[in-house]
Amino acid sequence: MKSVQVEASEVSKGSSSSQSLSRGLSVIDFILRTLASFGTLASAIAMGTTRQTLPFVTRFVRFKAVYKDLPTLTFFVIANSVVCGYLVISLPLSFFHVVKCKVTKSRIILIIFDTVMMALLTAGASSAAAIVNLAHNGNTNANWFAICRQFNSFCQRISGSLIGSFVAVVVFILLIIISAVVISRR
Amino acid sequence: MKSVQVEASEVSKGSSSSQSLSRGLSVIDFILRTLASFGTLASAIAMGTTRQTLPFVTRFVRFKAVYKDLPTLTFFVIANSVVCGYLVISLPLSFFHVVKCKVTKSRIILIIFDTVMMALLTAGASSAAAIVNLAHNGNTNANWFAICRQFNSFCQRISGSLIGSFVAVVVFILLIIISAVVISRR
Repeated sequence: MKSVQVEASEVSKGSSSSQSLSRGLSVIDFILRTLASFGTLASAIAMGTTRQTLPFVTRFVRFKAVYKDLPTLTFFVIANSVVCGYLVISLPLSFFHVVKCKVTKSRIILIIFDTVMMALLTAGASSAAAIVNLAHNGNTNANWFAICRQFNSFCQRISGSLIGSFVAVVVFILLIIISAVVISRR
Repeated sequence: MKSVQVEASEVSKGSSSSQSLSRGLSVIDFILRTLASFGTLASAIAMGTTRQTLPFVTRFVRFKAVYKDLPTLTFFVIANSVVCGYLVISLPLSFFHVVKCKVTKSRIILIIFDTVMMALLTAGASSAAAIVNLAHNGNTNANWFAICRQFNSFCQRISGSLIGSFVAVVVFILLIIISAVVISRR
């Protein structure tokens, strides 16, 4: 009788520590999700509101540079906006996971959407990075000139706007891993 | 006594069907991993071996086009090679999961690496897609000319090489979801 009681108490202790770990990871999930939503929002706004008008005109240089001039940067703004919207929508579910640690199905749903959104965000951030790199350095082999010599402040802004997006990509990697660990510890 | 036997047989049936589902998903995981390794290998080889020499010379057109002329395409080849190498290394572990369905820790390790590799591959494929799109269409706002008018066969090859890579990205999304589902059904 005594040994059964000891075993039961050990199982209960193990279950309790596992549950508190799951709750801790769920809280981290919620915080990371909030962080990533701010990162993507900041990236979308920083890129979307960038414009520079040059004070002079030559044969080759345009008057004004906005993100819409480069289709890849438009995709970047759309991808970040969509992912930011998704993250905000997922916050209540993430909070629900803090309260109810043991649910699994909704965590699987979150993993599915997190993975798809991570792919979308990485695609947006990487393609924009490729174009921003080209704007900075140009490519002599393809005769593509570095436009940042003229549009200096425009280039600084679009480079900076990549940061929030790449931070969010790292956060998504962590979110997926956290979800998998929590599911495995049910 | 009878009711206990019936319950035990139901639990055993449920466990058996869950195990066969896990085994089925593990087999799909192995097949998808093999498919993705061929896709990334084909992409890396197709991009890496592309070259076109023009039969004429003008002031602006170069003699030869290879993937190394564009740093983003070099990154694409490296990313695909690394991911292909990882996929080949992960195949024995995936096969081990077919045999031993119930293991969890190694599945978590696979999810971690799969997620990081997916981010790397998506970054490589998307940035290359942005540059390939630029090579095809150019950008009049930035005075970047479409080089595909001259290097037509080079452009066709680099466009085609993106396919295997994007297929592998979709496969990675499926792999992560499959691993999460299998872990949840232990």
